[in-house]
Formats: sequence, C-alpha cells, structure tokens
Amino acid sequence: MKLDKCLTSDSINQNLLNIQYAVRGPIVQRALQIERELEKGVKKPFDRVIRANIGDSHALGIKPITFIRQVLALAACPQLAKTTDFPEDVRQRVREILEDCPLGSVGAYSPPAGLRVIRSRIAQYLQKRDGVPASPDDIYLGSGASDVIKAVLNMFVKEVDGKPPAVMLPIPQYPMFSSMLTELGMRRTDYYLDEEHDWALSVEELERCWREASVDTHVRVLVVINPGNPTGQVLTRRNIEQIIKFAYDHNIFLMPDEVYQENVVCKPFLSFKKVMHEMGAPYSSMELASFMSCSKGWAAESGLRSGFVELVRLEPKVAAAFSTARGVMQCPSVLGQCIMDCVVKPPSPGEPSYEQFAKELRDIHQVLAEGTELAYNTFNSIPGYSCNPIDGSMYAYPRIEIPVRAQAAAAELGMAPDEFYCLRLLEETGVCVVAGTGFDQLPGTFHFRTTIVHPREELQHMMDSIRRFHMDFLKTYP
Amino acid sequence: MKLDKCLTSDSINQNLLNIQYAVRGPIVQRALQIERELEKGVKKPFDRVIRANIGDSHALGIKPITFIRQVLALAACPQLAKTTDFPEDVRQRVREILEDCPLGSVGAYSPPAGLRVIRSRIAQYLQKRDGVPASPDDIYLGSGASDVIKAVLNMFVKEVDGKPPAVMLPIPQYPMFSSMLTELGMRRTDYYLDEEHDWALSVEELERCWREASVDTHVRVLVVINPGNPTGQVLTRRNIEQIIKFAYDHNIFLMPDEVYQENVVCKPFLSFKKVMHEMGAPYSSMELASFMSCSKGWAAESGLRSGFVELVRLEPKVAAAFSTARGVMQCPSVLGQCIMDCVVKPPSPGEPSYEQFAKELRDIHQVLAEGTELAYNTFNSIPGYSCNPIDGSMYAYPRIEIPVRAQAAAAELGMAPDEFYCLRLLEETGVCVVAGTGFDQLPGTFHFRTTIVHPREELQHMMDSIRRFHMDFLKTYP
Repeated sequence: MKLDKCLTSDSINQNLLNIQYAVRGPIVQRALQIERELEKGVKKPFDRVIRANIGDSHALGIKPITFIRQVLALAACPQLAKTTDFPEDVRQRVREILEDCPLGSVGAYSPPAGLRVIRSRIAQYLQKRDGVPASPDDIYLGSGASDVIKAVLNMFVKEVDGKPPAVMLPIPQYPMFSSMLTELGMRRTDYYLDEEHDWALSVEELERCWREASVDTHVRVLVVINPGNPTGQVLTRRNIEQIIKFAYDHNIFLMPDEVYQENVVCKPFLSFKKVMHEMGAPYSSMELASFMSCSKGWAAESGLRSGFVELVRLEPKVAAAFSTARGVMQCPSVLGQCIMDCVVKPPSPGEPSYEQFAKELRDIHQVLAEGTELAYNTFNSIPGYSCNPIDGSMYAYPRIEIPVRAQAAAAELGMAPDEFYCLRLLEETGVCVVAGTGFDQLPGTFHFRTTIVHPREELQHMMDSIRRFHMDFLKTYP
Repeated sequence: MKLDKCLTSDSINQNLLNIQYAVRGPIVQRALQIERELEKGVKKPFDRVIRANIGDSHALGIKPITFIRQVLALAACPQLAKTTDFPEDVRQRVREILEDCPLGSVGAYSPPAGLRVIRSRIAQYLQKRDGVPASPDDIYLGSGASDVIKAVLNMFVKEVDGKPPAVMLPIPQYPMFSSMLTELGMRRTDYYLDEEHDWALSVEELERCWREASVDTHVRVLVVINPGNPTGQVLTRRNIEQIIKFAYDHNIFLMPDEVYQENVVCKPFLSFKKVMHEMGAPYSSMELASFMSCSKGWAAESGLRSGFVELVRLEPKVAAAFSTARGVMQCPSVLGQCIMDCVVKPPSPGEPSYEQFAKELRDIHQVLAEGTELAYNTFNSIPGYSCNPIDGSMYAYPRIEIPVRAQAAAAELGMAPDEFYCLRLLEETGVCVVAGTGFDQLPGTFHFRTTIVHPREELQHMMDSIRRFHMDFLKTYP
C-alpha cells in the first residue's frame, strides 16, 4: 500500500515554501488565538485585541463612502431604481457604466483590461493629476494593485546577458514585494531608505546597491513606494528627479507603487509620471509602470479588490504580450471596477451627492490627520522611541531602542528582538502590530509598523498602552 | 542618446510571448473590428455580429438571478434596508454575511481563503452533493476558478527526480490550461478524448500519453474537464473510476475542473471526490483539487469573478505553503464571495424568494436544454457535420469536414483550415465562433466551439446562418 503523497514539501515549488508575509504572520496568528481565548472567557490584562497590523481601513473604523456603495448597489440591482430613491448622480453614473456592459449586466465579462468607459475616466483623472496626456489603452485594471504588480514583475524573470534579473527594493519595504519575488524566483537587491533624512532615497545608496548587485545579477527594476509603506514619507520633487536620473543612467525599469497617493496629509504628492514629463528629454520618454488601488485612499474598499497599473511607452510587442496574458484570466471584478470609477471621478460640487461625499471625505481626512499627529507626537515622546514625520499612507513606523537584556531574552527564544518586543506588546496589551523584521530594516535598528486610522479614542488607548508597555518593558529589561 | 527600451521582446519573460488564447484571439478581434465597421455604416451581408465565442451567459441573454443581485445590493449598501422592501431571506442572508465581515463592511479584507461563514456553507453544499464530509479549511475562494487553478498548477513547477514536470491535458481542452502552463513554463502532455465514444477518456490513451511523456518528463498532474469544455460530455461513473485508478497507479495528482457541474442537461453529474470516496481504500485517501465557479452554472456571474478550489488531503506543509502564498494577494472580492454563498445555498421552498428563484432557474434550464437540443439536431443534419450528444456545459463542438480545396485556400493564407472556415463564417454571416485549432484537436479533424445559450430566436438564426454558410462553402470549395 502506497503511503506517499503526490505532492510533498520536497516536491512542491520550493519558492512557495520560502514565502514569508509578516502582515499575516505568526504574531497575527497569535492575535487571532488570543481573540478566541478571550471569547472563551480566559482572563487577560485587556478585554480585546486591537488589530493594527494591516492597512484595512473599514476594519479599523473608517466608514464606507455612501456614493460608492449606492453605485455598487444600483449597478448590481438596476431594478432598485424603481423602488428606491437614489440620487440622480448615482443613477447617471450607473447608467454610464451599464451602457458599457454587455446587455447591461455587471455579471458579463468586461474586456480583460477593464471597461472602456472606466479606463477613459481613469485616463482623465491621471491627465488632470499630472498635466500629461494619458491613454485608456495604457491602463489595465486588476484585482487590487497586487494583481497587476505581480503581472508586471512577471515580465522581468528572464536572464539578461547571462545574468539572473534582480529587482531593487527599498528597506524597509512592504513585504508583498519580497513575497512576490520569492514566488517568482527572482533575486531582490535592497537599498536602504535614509531614516536620518525622513526616509528619502539617497542616490549614493542606490548606486551602491546597483553596483553590488551588478556583480552577479542584471538589475532590471527599481521599486519605489511613494507615499512610503511602512514609512509614510512623501518624496520631494528633487528626490524623484534623482531617482529618475539614476534609473535612466542604468537602464532600469521604474515601478513606483503609488497606491497611497490619496492618503496624503500635508506634503503634495507628485507622481513619477508627472516629474518624468516635466524633466523633458530624455527622461520623458522612459518606460514606467505606476500603480493605484481602491484598497487605500478615502475609498478604502480593500475587500472589493480593485486597482490598476498605468503602463506607459512599452514596446508594442511587450504590451501585446502583457495584454494577452491578462486576457487568459478574463477580467477583474466589474463591481471592483465600478469603485475605481467613483474614485477617479467622485461627486463634484453642485451634484446631488456632493455634500454628503464632501463631509465623509473631510471626516476621513480628519481621522488620518489626527492619527498622524497623535502617533508622531506619542512616538517622539516615549523614551527610546523616535519617529520621522508622517506625510501620508496610514501607518507609523517608529524606531525603538531595545535594551541588550531584552535582545538576549529574544535570542533565547530564537526570535528577532523586535518580534519579541511586538509579541510581548500583544500579550500584555492586546495591541497587534508588525515587527520591523517583517519589513526589513537596517541591521541593529528596530521598528514596528502600526496603523493609525483607528477612531480617536481607540488610537489614544493604543498609544497609552504602548507607552505603558514600553516603560514596564524597560523595567523588566533595564 | 539612448533609444533602447528597458524591456523588449527579447528581454521579456519569453513564456508570455508564447501564450495563445483563441477565445479572445484574432477571429474575435476581427469580430470587434466588424462591429465598428457596422457602426460606421459599412454594408455587410448581416446587420450585427453574433458573439458565440465566449461562455459569457449574461452577454448572451441569460438574466441575472434576482436573489443574488438583491443580496449584492444590500451587502454593498446595508442602509438600503431602511428604504427598500427586500425579501426577508435576502435580509437574513446579508445579516449572516456581514456578521462575519470586520465591522460589517464588505470593504474590509476577508481571510485570504474567504469568509468563514461562506466557506462553511460551501462545505455543507459539497457534503450534500457528495455524501462525503467536507471541511471549510480545505476551501479557498478565488477571483474566479482561473485564479485558484493557476495557484494550484504553480505548486507543481519543480523538477522531480531530475525531470521537468508535465501536466496531462485533454484534447480538446479549454485553452486557459495551455496558456497557464505556457506562462508557468510547464510542459503539457496531451491525451485525446475519444470522439467516437462521446468524448470519453480511454485508459489506453491515458496510458499511452503517460508512457510517452515519461521518457523525458515526470507526469505530475492530470487535468480532467467534467462536464467537458468545449466538448460538453458528462463522464460516467465507470469512466471516472478508471481515471482515478490510472492516477493512483502512476501517483498523479488529480485536478478535475468541475466548473460546469450546475450546467447539466440530462445525465447526472458525479464529482471525482464522491466517486473516489465510494471506491474506498486506497483511492479514498488520494489528494485532489476540484474547482467550481460562479461564472458558470445558473448564476453565470462571469464578470464578478468568484470561484473556489477544494483541496483535500494535502500534506500539511504543502497546504500551509499554499495558504501563505494566497495570503500575499490578500483575499478575493468579498462581493464575489457573496455570490458563491448564494450559489451553494439558494432560496429553499417556503422562503420568500423561492418562487421567483425557481422560475428564473427553470427559465435558464429551459434555455440550456432547448439550446442543446437545437444545436445537436442542427449539427447532425448539416451534410459534413457531426456532433456528439451534449450532456452539459453551454457549448456545442461539432466536427466538420472541410473540403480539400478549402484546405488549400486556407494554406495559401497561412491559416489552419478550421480557422479559415470560422473566419469565412464570420465575414459572411456575422457569427463569431472559435475554431477547433484553439482547443487543439486530433490532426486531420476540424471542429469549432459555439455557445448555445442565446435566446431561442437568435440561436435559430445562428443555426440557419451556419447551415446556409456551409452549403455555400461547399459550392465554393466543391
């Protein structure tokens, strides 16, 4: 009798075994376990887990935008128009979308890149944002930005000049990138963001990274996350220009992850496409893949999976291959696409939904602004903590000093010091954050990422808990 | 001045260049072009294109199920409950789903495998279908079945015993499979379905395929499409038993694509899981990945991208790796998941939505049954055509004799004979079908696939057009 499995941990695609994704990693698993313990009545020094590990705004308390939800409801169920009093701009929007759906059903496949009417509106949005022409033909919607990010990275797996391809990732980075590279079997090469200078990209560091990687790889792609995740910085025009020049000089494909572009607090967001254009020749003719998502920003519809990539100036054969590969998967969710339509063309002043939309938007911006301020102030007032200004995104990524004795205690448990710290924080306060190890960090430095868009009182409670915990921690490990 | 692109057709992942997907291929592109010509007033022998190339029921005229759409609308916009009179079972369903969503929003991420409440209901559905226990932990929802099919295939890319892995595909096959294997850089090895015996799988042919492939590859996976696409057969219990024994004997992982299980006309559908279980040891302990989709069946919500895989008896480390990899992409659309919930637990007799649901279901079954009959009768009455019984799916795949002179005319244009035939059919009648070349076929035989769930009059018109075209074609190429 045969006992062997067909597929074992030896015979499975080994890349899959190596994926690590801390945003849903062991500490988060422990948080879920604690939640179940609390449900069963187990006594803890807190009465509930506060999840601050994932950028999931609706789960943190941000309310959905009414206009978006009304459009979704009416697009799904057009006969509701007969019985329910939807605002006229909602009706009009749904009419426009359904006219582009075969027989008016969101349940029919759209073209693989997305409905034409929605891609046209995205192009208008980009054109308005950048003052640069944009074409619907360059836009491919996806099931969240992650879907199209993976599809773009997958174009680069080929060896070039006998060397394996490498992708430059920032450190700290959003671990979706490292996980995807692991899955695709691609090398990553890391450049450190400059924590001393508000997490800017230093050209010297980019050059160092490129030089070292070029010994045995061909550096093909530069990933830049702007606004930063987990770091929250918004890049300056000058810094973006430097990065573009660097990419041009080394013939590297630029992949700015710009999914937090609508989550900006104070500094203006500048897209790579805009800056590239304004730099003029030769930079204005570079290729580019820029990403956007409905999971972030004020829409924050993470669970409904919608995003897009704008792919500009690709070689036509390359664009055709990308397009054919996308077509095999048919299309992204048409209701997801509808959300993107609302994001790129929200209600305007004078339209029936505008007033409510504007109020909801103000509320969301206020939560983000207050959360940013509270986190920044708190993390710069706890002894041993420091935190750069947070320009955008929805995270704080404070640096923490971890006493040597605590590092030793962590080592005994086979844990990284910051993982140990975050696990203790969870066990003692119920606050669930992600250790810097999950995002990578400069050796010898320690951080964690926390979301900051919780309701005011909850965030205050979180901050108080973290402060109290840290002071106790310093007593335990002096 | 540098003119080179970073990414060229030489340096792109070559697998992407090799993908061919006839369902959206050149003939379909020509159909789109003809539609634009008609819009501009160009005269044609027909006044509109009839798209029969893609299994996209809503685009063909099948109406969405009201219960599903009401659930989607209310889940997206729960405050509609205040102003709109939804049936109580719709309200109840939405309450149950939203209770499992963080803070009651479908815009929050679900667990990567899908909401627990929905996976539990899927398990109940499978248990009822098969009379075999099913666990929510074995179920992973995806953005359509294609998403999870690709994820499962991706587990098998590793060389085993120094040989590259190979996947056994039926011929004819649904070209999504061949396209995915091309993208993943995996070898396929083809077994021919037995057209003389209602497209059954012959064990001799499976053995031949395995033996020949085993010379230089390690055969890892057997894909079976049941009900068949494009062929429409439903496999008998005896045939399924033979296939399971074959897979067991050669330690091959079974991947039955069962997405058309709710599109069955006359023969009963038996799942591989059920048959495996009823065969007892040792077959009942084999691994299995079975797929289901909301794009097909009576829901037919193709554009809303929802499907799942049930992955049974995997080695725990393998299941964990699969699960981690899925988590990097966060989750499939929560509204898509809601559709699956409705599919696996539709309204029951006595519930307020039942009567309307039952009527809509009857109508859809009637369209499928009538379409099947009309296509079968037509294709067996045109000289030079023959067509096996169509047990299910939503396609007919008739075999056509193409005269030698027509084959010569095709060769002059560098086209396959059946592609030439389908292109002529399109140009002369506006009917857009997919040539057998796109699904692969026994050399020297010719087929095409057409969808058959159009409204009765349109389908009759299509059938008449095809008959008339074929008789003219025989006159042109005697």
